Parts: sequence; C-alpha cells; structure tokens
Amino acid sequence: MSRDNFKWKRKDLLGTYDLSKEEILYLLDTAKSMEEVLERDVKKVPPLRGKSCVTLFYEPSTRTRTSFELAAKILSADTINISVSSSSAVKGETILDSVKNIEAMSVDCVIIRHHHSGVPQFIAKNTNLAVINAGDGSHEHPTQALLDLLTIRDHKNSIEGLNVAIVGDILHSRVARSNIFALKKLNNTVNLVGPKTFVPKEFERFGVNVFHNLEDGLSGADVIMVLRIQKERMGKCFYPSEREYAKFFSINENSLKLAKDDAIIMHPGPVNRGLEISSDVLDSKRSIVLDQVKNGVAVRMAILYVLLCGGKFEDSN
Amino acid sequence: MSRDNFKWKRKDLLGTYDLSKEEILYLLDTAKSMEEVLERDVKKVPPLRGKSCVTLFYEPSTRTRTSFELAAKILSADTINISVSSSSAVKGETILDSVKNIEAMSVDCVIIRHHHSGVPQFIAKNTNLAVINAGDGSHEHPTQALLDLLTIRDHKNSIEGLNVAIVGDILHSRVARSNIFALKKLNNTVNLVGPKTFVPKEFERFGVNVFHNLEDGLSGADVIMVLRIQKERMGKCFYPSEREYAKFFSINENSLKLAKDDAIIMHPGPVNRGLEISSDVLDSKRSIVLDQVKNGVAVRMAILYVLLCGGKFEDSN
Amino acid sequence: MSRDNFKWKRKDLLGTYDLSKEEILYLLDTAKSMEEVLERDVKKVPPLRGKSCVTLFYEPSTRTRTSFELAAKILSADTINISVSSSSAVKGETILDSVKNIEAMSVDCVIIRHHHSGVPQFIAKNTNLAVINAGDGSHEHPTQALLDLLTIRDHKNSIEGLNVAIVGDILHSRVARSNIFALKKLNNTVNLVGPKTFVPKEFERFGVNVFHNLEDGLSGADVIMVLRIQKERMGKCFYPSEREYAKFFSINENSLKLAKDDAIIMHPGPVNRGLEISSDVLDSKRSIVLDQVKNGVAVRMAILYVLLCGGKFEDSN
Repeated sequence: MSRDNFKWKRKDLLGTYDLSKEEILYLLDTAKSMEEVLERDVKKVPPLRGKSCVTLFYEPSTRTRTSFELAAKILSADTINISVSSSSAVKGETILDSVKNIEAMSVDCVIIRHHHSGVPQFIAKNTNLAVINAGDGSHEHPTQALLDLLTIRDHKNSIEGLNVAIVGDILHSRVARSNIFALKKLNNTVNLVGPKTFVPKEFERFGVNVFHNLEDGLSGADVIMVLRIQKERMGKCFYPSEREYAKFFSINENSLKLAKDDAIIMHPGPVNRGLEISSDVLDSKRSIVLDQVKNGVAVRMAILYVLLCGGKFEDSN
Repeated sequence: MSRDNFKWKRKDLLGTYDLSKEEILYLLDTAKSMEEVLERDVKKVPPLRGKSCVTLFYEPSTRTRTSFELAAKILSADTINISVSSSSAVKGETILDSVKNIEAMSVDCVIIRHHHSGVPQFIAKNTNLAVINAGDGSHEHPTQALLDLLTIRDHKNSIEGLNVAIVGDILHSRVARSNIFALKKLNNTVNLVGPKTFVPKEFERFGVNVFHNLEDGLSGADVIMVLRIQKERMGKCFYPSEREYAKFFSINENSLKLAKDDAIIMHPGPVNRGLEISSDVLDSKRSIVLDQVKNGVAVRMAILYVLLCGGKFEDSN
Repeated sequence: MSRDNFKWKRKDLLGTYDLSKEEILYLLDTAKSMEEVLERDVKKVPPLRGKSCVTLFYEPSTRTRTSFELAAKILSADTINISVSSSSAVKGETILDSVKNIEAMSVDCVIIRHHHSGVPQFIAKNTNLAVINAGDGSHEHPTQALLDLLTIRDHKNSIEGLNVAIVGDILHSRVARSNIFALKKLNNTVNLVGPKTFVPKEFERFGVNVFHNLEDGLSGADVIMVLRIQKERMGKCFYPSEREYAKFFSINENSLKLAKDDAIIMHPGPVNRGLEISSDVLDSKRSIVLDQVKNGVAVRMAILYVLLCGGKFEDSN
C-alpha cells in the first residue's frame, strides 16, 4: 500500500474542505484498524494513556459527545466533559480565554462544538491544543462526513465514482457541507435534493448538482443521505408544514424506487420518523444508519490516535 | 453451598417479580463477596476492564446514578452518563432509537431510569444490551430491593421468615413493589401501612397484609421500611397536609415502640426529616440507612459482574 | 531540607487560615514535584488508584471542577461529578445527609463548593471523608491561594517578604481572604485596594493595609492580584457602574506604572476583559494568569496526594 509511507502532519481536524484525498483515505484506513478493537471482548488499548481530552460543547449533543468520549476511553485517554450551561461561558469570559485555560491545565485535545461557524478554527489557530471540530454552526462536521465515507466504503467496496444524493435542508447543514467536500475530493457525483429554500442554486459552485424534486435527484443514486429536518424551521419562512415536506421529500418505500435497486440509506440522526424518512425504510435492510453510528466510534478513535500519537496504529491483542 | 453450581442466565435485570429465590440469593451472595473489595485500601478489580456502561436517566437522580457509576468503576468498567436534559430526547428521537444508537457504539450495558413503567423492559426486549432497570415509573426498582434484602440479612442473619412493615405511599412506590415481590419470594410476612389513598386494598393479591394505622401495621415487625413521601402529593387529593401525615404515620420514638424491640429501620432516601421519619430515629442505632447505601454499591457491582462476566466472582488482592 | 521530616496530619483542607507556615510550604513543595508529572508525555501516576473523589458543587464552576478532576485522574483516582441542578438537593435532603450517603458509598474524598460559608467545615467535622474546600461563600478558597503562592514563588524565587496588592471587591472575595491569610503567614506585606464599599477598614485587623486608590495601593507592589468583578453588583448599592469602576480601579498600562517595574499581574479568572483588567495587560508578559491555571492542577494533585496518601511523593517515570 502506498499509504504505508504517508505521514500525518496536521495539528487539528477542522473540516474536510482542507483535507487531501490522501489524508481522507489515511483516516479511513486507520479507522478500519480501530474497528477490529471494537470487536474485542476487552475494548481497551493503551496508546492515549496519560493524555486527556476535553469535550467542550456549546450546543447540546448526546450522540456525538458520547461517541467521542467512548473513542477516547477505549484508547485509554481521560475525558472531561464541559457543556455550556455548567460552564463559565455564562460568566462573560471569552471563548479563547476559556480554551486557553483548558490548555494551561495540560490537556492534550479539545473536541469543540459551537453554534457559530469558525469557532474551532479560531481556537486551533490560537492554541497549541489538538482541536477537533465536532460541529461549527452550519459550516463543517468533519467526523460525521468521515464516518459516512467509511460506512459507504464498507457497503459499496469503494468510496470513489459513486452517485450520492443528499436530501433535505442542505442550506443549514454542516453534515451536508462536510460530506460534499469529502465526496467531491474522492470523485463522486453529488446530487443535492430539497425545496428551493433549503437547496439554493449557489451550491453548484461546489461541483454538485441541485435538484428540487426526488424524481430527478434520486435517479441513479447508489447512496441516499437523508438529513434531519429541524422541526422549528417548519411553518416559518423556509417551509409551510411538516406534512407538506413529508409529502414531497420524505424517503419512503415509494421514493426509494427512484434510486438504484441496491441504493443504501443513511441518516446522521437523530431521526424524525415519518418526517424526513419513513419508519419502514429506516428499519429496512437498506438502511445502514446503525453502521454509521458504529463507525463513528472507530473514526473518532482514528482521529484522536492520528492527532495525538501519529504513526501507524498497531496493537496486538 | 448448593449455589456453587448455580448458573446465571438472564441478559438483563429488570425487576424482582421475575427473579427466582435462587437468583435472588445468588445475587446477594455475589454482593457479599463484593463487599470485601469495598473494604480494601485499593478499591479496584479488573473484571469489567474494556467494557462500558451507560447510565441513561430520564429522571434526575444523584444517589442511584453515583452508586452505579462507582460500582462500574471499581470493577474497571468505563462509564458514560446521559441525562435527559442534555440528551437528544428533546429532539424528538424515540427512546428505542436513542438506545439502539448507544448499542451501536459498542456499549455493553445500559442502566436506565424512566418515569414511565415498562421502558427498561421494552429496551431489553429490543436490543442485545445488558439492561439494568434503575427505576421505571411506579413499577420496579430491583437494585433497591436487592440492597434492602442484603442489608436485612446482614442485620438479622436471615432473609426468610421475617415480619417486614413497609410504611408510606405504597401506591406510587417502585421501591415498595420490588421489595414486596422479593420479600414474598423468600417467605417473609409483608405488612403495608399507610393511609387508604396510599395503600389500596388491591395490594392484598400480592400476598401481603394491608393496614391503615401504625398500631396494627407495626405490630411484631422485625423490619420497618419507611418510604419517602413526595411532598408534591401533599395537599392534593392524596393527603391533606404534611402535618397530618406526620401525625399519623411518621416513624418516631413513639411509633417505634409498636414494633419488636430489635426492629431495624430502613429508608431508601432521600429522607424528609420530620415528615415520614423523625430525626432522632433516623440518627439512632436502630437505623441502618447508611448500611443500605453502602450495600447499594456492592449489590450493583454484583449485578454488573453477573450480567457482563457471568461465573463466580473471585479476586485475590 | 528541614521539610523532609515534616508529617502532614490534617484530614481535610478547609482554608489557609488554620494552616501553619510549614504546612503551606510543604504543600507548595509537593506541588512542585507534581509539576514534573505534568511535563511528561504520559501524564499518569498510580498513587490514588482504587480511590474515588466526588466533586460536589452547589455553585456552577468549570475551571475549578475541571482542574480538580484532571488532578485526580492524573493520580489515577476515579472521579464522580455531582452538581446541584442534577442532585437530590432539590428533593429536600439535608447537605449532611447527602454527603453521609456519599461517604457510605466508600468514596474517599469530597471536593465541595457551596454558596454558604462554613459548609465544608461542617461536613468535615461530621464525616470521616477527606474534605477539600473548593470555595465556600465569601469565606475561603484555599486551593486558589496555594496555587497563587506557588506561582508567585516560581516568578519571584521567594514567597516571603514581598509586597502584594490585591485589587477589587475584597469584601465578597473568598480568593482574597484565603490569600490574605496565607500571604501574611509568610510575612508578606498585603495591600488591599478598591472602593470603600468593596474594601472596608475592618480588614486592617488581618494585618493588611487598606487603600481606596490605585496610586497608594500599587506603590511598591511586587505582585498585583486583580480580582474578578461580579457584574451583577454594578449599578446596585456597591458601585455606580462598570465604566466608573474601570476608570478608577482597572489595571491597565497606565495604572501598572504605579507598581514596581517587574511587578507581575495575577487574576483568578474568569476575566472580564476591559473591566477589572485591560486586554493589553492581561495578554502582556507581565501577566502570569495561565501559569496560575497550570499550577492549579499541580497544587490540587499535591493536596489530593497529601490527604489521601500522606508521605512524600516520589515517582520515577
């Protein structure tokens, strides 16, 4: 393998926009070797022993925080959770001062989620910490994209030259952006599908196709990525109602027929059953949503390992 | 011992209702061997190394969550806490989807508390996770009953053929139900005592006696289990006032005389001093409330060990 | 060194008021040896393996809780976090009952913060737990004072005979009180500076000087400790406005000239930039605020070690 000689050089993982094809594939390969650890009876390996990771979440999250926390613990790191409500953010301290304090405490890595785009990048630039972006505004959510790519590769035996449809509120979705950047780097066709308010024409400059109906958007799809619809956006300026949205854009047994026969269905969760996706499709064999969740732990282990240890992961049980 | 050949077969611990006498005694014996670990200077044994437990609490709790978390950590498991307020429950995801996600993350055990009866049972049936019921609605709280039985046995040298009075709001108490089921399995006499609104006649079908005054209810009692009174039920349809309740049903120096001279006093906590129990009784030598708390850790260690490791616990320091 | 034969005897760390000069210096020396651990690649040493520490915070805090949690984990202790909002404090249980429960669970140490002065002392007296005061009302915050002293010693090569100015709301500050007691034990000159409402004359009985203007208060200062101003006290009876406070008492490039040329600037955080301290001073080389934060972990490691292990810390990597 040519990737045997690859050497990771980044201090941080901030987005897929900046990653090279080689970097993406290196992370996927490292994640693959982590998957083996997750199959063991004793899911614990020593590389991050004596390192500590802080999850610093300015937005609530169970899934992503838990996935990172498990990944860190399996690699023997210590983890500290800080969430906004219990943090000194309320005391008027700047975010940078908060993180500089964490850095001064000899912490090795900060995993940060923030409702404003650009915060992890700002933190990364101004500290020596390894910074992992766990979601910034509607900008990037790179670990989600990487776990999506790993899961696609597991099921399609390739992550290049596929036709991927992303369906839903692309405009507000950091999951969509990180996937678009990563999928395009690996020469996939990306079709964005949704109402005009959610999928503006401007996205075409990323080299993707924009569709406003499932018929065209799902045609030829190997992969259907369904995005979560934020219910609070329904009935406002973006879309008239949940019922209206579900009627035209929900992925169900009928709309599924528009894609290839072996198309797989993905969703970053949490799912609104019956809104963006029907229960029968979500619970069908075509849905690989739980594989995504499982791969999420492996991908996050890989990123923590690569940022904090470097080198190639090898662990004999 | 005949229990040397006993083999645990359940995936989950959901309630005492389904447990056989042998299963109950096996858990108590395993807990007894865990107690020895708690006496050590270095309270750490390796059996659950590389396993992870999630506490998933849809109701606030310090005591039970902390007890489980300590039990897991002493056995070298990793623990992740998820509480409702910071969870994606608010995002409209179904509980089963939330737990299936946790399962997909290679977690081994979920310890769940929920305000609705039946939720842990539903989760257990639909996942491969080891599920521990940490309290479901007014249904069951099996670890509380098991720690109560262990504590009674420690003090009375037996957990069979005793006279146990349970005093308070039986109707809404999962602690009462789990104790009733377990105590009856072990051939104890159980007397329920409280006002009619809190102790309906219907409970008699569980093979217990129902009393509406302390004089009759405490007569001959070896053990008095005092339940916590939910203050928010006072002044509503259930009972006129705290003062009225305390006057007729509080366990104090006077009412204590109605029981046997060596009757022990128990309470699952947290205690409302001066309401369901007087401070002098709670702080007296007859009260074994803190022994219950200590045994809680040992019982939870035993359950985690039995569900996740199986076999007989042996650890030489 | 004469301190080689010193033996620590206290069960708890409740305040600096009671500490002898020898005790303070012993803790600083132990912290110094912990600093070396923090420089390692693998920041993990075994002395507290199998011990557990509970952080019990009745006031929100990120900084102090995280610092203690990291300190405990680096020493291999298990940690459990309990914060008021998720605790049974809301259920009407007394604080002592809550802590007695924690003690019964075989926990070794409770790190407590409470908005009422005297709570940690009350807990310490009534349990066998090692109790560490992480801040009680406006009374004491001894670990903050110890980390301040360690940081001063690092920068001034001595912690005796210095001129230390403490600027701000002394009246409500537990940081100020703990520093006053500790600094005076070590024969330093302490000048308190602030408006009359924040710095009453009565403080003089602690052997310190009281000033109501920076000109007099900073004259000859080797060290300037800036306290955080609680914005909620502005515009009330204590002080007319933030702007008014900043004009007369903010530490900025101008007011800094009043102190010695090599005066160092300290702040316990979180900082209100532009209120009690200007951004340029905070970010200048004179500011040792992040050294304080780093030393906080070392000092807390030292205290945990001394209380739970005793003896002299020695660890060869």
